[in-house]
Parts: sequence; structure tokens; C-alpha cells
Amino acid sequence: MVLRAVQGLRVFFTLLCEVIFGQKARRDKMSQNDSYFLSWRLAVEANNVRPWRTVPLHYSHHLEVYMLGGQYQLDVQLIGEQISVYVSEITPLPGDGMDAWVLDVDDTCISNVNFYKERRFGCDPFDSTGFKAWIKEGACPAIPAVLALFKKLIDRGFKVVLLTGRDEERFGKITIDNLHNQGFIGYERLIMRTSAQKGVSAVSYKSNIRKQLEGEGYRIWGNVGDQWSDLQGDSCGKRTFKLPNPMYCIA
Amino acid sequence: MVLRAVQGLRVFFTLLCEVIFGQKARRDKMSQNDSYFLSWRLAVEANNVRPWRTVPLHYSHHLEVYMLGGQYQLDVQLIGEQISVYVSEITPLPGDGMDAWVLDVDDTCISNVNFYKERRFGCDPFDSTGFKAWIKEGACPAIPAVLALFKKLIDRGFKVVLLTGRDEERFGKITIDNLHNQGFIGYERLIMRTSAQKGVSAVSYKSNIRKQLEGEGYRIWGNVGDQWSDLQGDSCGKRTFKLPNPMYCIA
Repeated sequence: MVLRAVQGLRVFFTLLCEVIFGQKARRDKMSQNDSYFLSWRLAVEANNVRPWRTVPLHYSHHLEVYMLGGQYQLDVQLIGEQISVYVSEITPLPGDGMDAWVLDVDDTCISNVNFYKERRFGCDPFDSTGFKAWIKEGACPAIPAVLALFKKLIDRGFKVVLLTGRDEERFGKITIDNLHNQGFIGYERLIMRTSAQKGVSAVSYKSNIRKQLEGEGYRIWGNVGDQWSDLQGDSCGKRTFKLPNPMYCIA
Repeated sequence: MVLRAVQGLRVFFTLLCEVIFGQKARRDKMSQNDSYFLSWRLAVEANNVRPWRTVPLHYSHHLEVYMLGGQYQLDVQLIGEQISVYVSEITPLPGDGMDAWVLDVDDTCISNVNFYKERRFGCDPFDSTGFKAWIKEGACPAIPAVLALFKKLIDRGFKVVLLTGRDEERFGKITIDNLHNQGFIGYERLIMRTSAQKGVSAVSYKSNIRKQLEGEGYRIWGNVGDQWSDLQGDSCGKRTFKLPNPMYCIA
């Protein structure tokens, strides 16, 4: 009986070791992939990878974990806190109503993650028809940290200009409604692409608008976007803030 | 005897559970800190946190793991690969000897990690005296991925300009020697701060030099640095590449 008990324990410990070390081997492999994904994501966010069309297919699971598992939200939140610190340091405003901030719309104010969730978070090629239908739903949820920032900016007396590459003619009303139903109320202007601006690169289009704003006398204190093309070119603003977006790249 | 064996097994399993779940609790806590550190590092590399003087103290261990554990090296390597892809796409060169790249020196070509290792990877305030003594040793090792890039650029016929904020009078000779002993041989020019440029901000100093280079007829195809102040301002180059450096920030 003692012999049988010893044999039983041996089998038990062998199985236990396999579970523990098997897990470790799997963890090591996952951790190596994680490391490559981290490098890729960092390079994307620091504008070292461009232009890129789709996310490398082997990162689709990593993207899912990043976008839905909490890290993306934490990343946005920390940037929101950094912006808050900067906003608090701007004192006092001249009070002439010309102190402005420029905020991008898609994946800055409101989120398209639910759309990209169905397209392997950017691993699938861009689905232009599907994206238009998605916008038409007017159901993009607010990005909480940016909504909080938006409200803070308005409370502090800044004029908030929302600047988007969305087509005005086709998506004007639904965008206004979507922003409104998500709490983006009280902005100075929503500027969208007119038919005359079709085909102009994002950097040129947004630079021109910002230059016009400065021409009107606005002082652009901050400029927030999820794409580098929101933040580069002319009249970028005194500070720019890049929100994370590893799902797509608008050159 | 059977009763004692059962009791023994109960104690054993209780201890085993404590080990397993205790480890899990510790892992969860560590993983939460890891997440915050990831957010902070991403925000730094995307130029959302600035200016910053020291690394938050509670990240000193994370910094150590990042800088020495392989992730930093992987991050630099991936950016090196991105640059290589871009370099391969530049064809053909006009052959007039005016196609240039600008590379920063400290923590771009050669590494100061060994210096910062003794200063909690940037958690300690900047030790100016110590840093001067460190430079005087001329013992900064090459960053392998950048040395490989440097050689590739020279092989491809580019003129490589090394542009550094180091003081020419004090560190001219030792910098030339250090670069030489690490294999940085064949560059076009090493440009250092002269006494006239003391006190000028990094962005202005480097912008002025790049403008002068363009004035001489150079076409700056790429500009590589570990600081955003290497990559912003005027005449930045057709592409800029930001290498990671979470240890310090030069505004």
C-alpha cells in the first residue's frame, strides 16, 4: 500500500511539473512575441513606421489584448493627465476668446474600436464601404479621457475646434449628432472636409485649416490627435499630443 | 496512520495553494505597475511628456529591466530595420555627393547606459560633473544597430554628418577617438557645439546646423536621434527616426 502511495505521488508530481514547466515554455514563447509587438507598437507611436497599410497579421491577437484588455485605455488616460497638467499651467487667459485647442474626431473624441474589432483590429485591409456604413450609424462611443479633457477645456474658457477629415456633405449631420449624443457639446466649430478639399493630403488639409484659424487670430495652445498627420505640418499648436492608435495609419 | 497521511496532504495542499495564489497576487500587482510603466514610456517616446527632469522613482526597477533585459535593444533593432527599408527605397542617388544623413551621437551612435546604470537609469538628478568625467573616459560603446546603419549608409554613398550638443573645445578630441574606437569611421563631418553656440537650445542649435547643411546643397534624407529635440525645428530631413531613450530628456 505504501509502495502504491509513493507511485501515486510520483505520477502526481510528474504531472504537476509538466503543467508548471509547460506553462513556462508557453509563457516564454508568448513573451517573445509580446516583446516584438511592443517594439512594433512603440515604433508606430513614435512615427518610425510609415506609411503602413495593415497591421502585421501575426499581431492580431496582441492588438485585441491591447485594445480591449485595458492597456490602451491606460495609455490614453495617462496622456489625458499630461494634457491636464499642461492646461493647468496656462494662466491666465487673456479673455479675448481667442485661446483655442484643436481636437481630431475619429479615435480622438469618439472611438472606432467596435468597427475595427470586426476587422481583426487593422489586420484586414481597410473596408471603405463598411466604414462609411459604420459612420452612418452615428454610434461611435466617446473616448472617456478625451471627453473629460473636452469638458475641462470648455470650463477653462478655451475655444475647442474639432477638425476632421470626414466628408462634410455626406457625414455632416450624423457626425454632429454622434458628437452630441456622446456629450461633446459646446465646441466652437466642427470643421470637416468640403468637396474642394477632397484628395488633399491630411497634413496639408489640416495645416491649411490651422493656418486659417491663426489668421483669424486664434492662439492654438494644444493639438490632439491619434495620427501623426493630425500633428505635423504648419501651425501645429504650441503643444501636440499623440494618442495611441495601432489599428490604422492615415498618411 | 491513514488519518495522519490525510492531514499531511491537507497541509501540503494548503501550502501549495498559498505559493501559487501568493505568486499570482504578486504577479497581478507587478503587472499593474508594468502597465503604468508601459503607458509612461509610450507617452515619453511619442513626445507627450515634456519637459521632464528625472524618471519617476518608482520606475527605477522597470527602467533597469527595460534597458538591460533586452526590450530596449529589440526596440532599437526594429527601428534600425525600418530605417534600412527606407534606405533601400532611395534609388538612385544623383551621385553628386550631396545626399546626406544626420545622426545624433549620445545614445544614438554610442551609448551612455553604463553611466546611467550607476544613477538608477535616470531616477537620480542629472550629475553634470560625473557625466563630463564619463565622456572624458571615451569609453561609450557603440549601439550595434546604429553602427550597422552607419556602415550601410556609407556603403550606399551617403554622406553621414554626426551632429552633437557636446562641447567641441572640451570634448572634441575624446569624442573623435571614442567614435573611432567604436568603428564609426568614414563620416563626412562631426559637428559639435562651439563656444558661440553655448546656451542656445538644442532645437535651435541643431536646426541652424541642418539649415546650413541644406544651404551648402546637402539633401538630408534622414535624421536619427534619441531626443525629440534632435528631430524638431527646421530642415528636419525627409524622414526622422526617434530612437528610444526613457532615461533623460533634453528639451
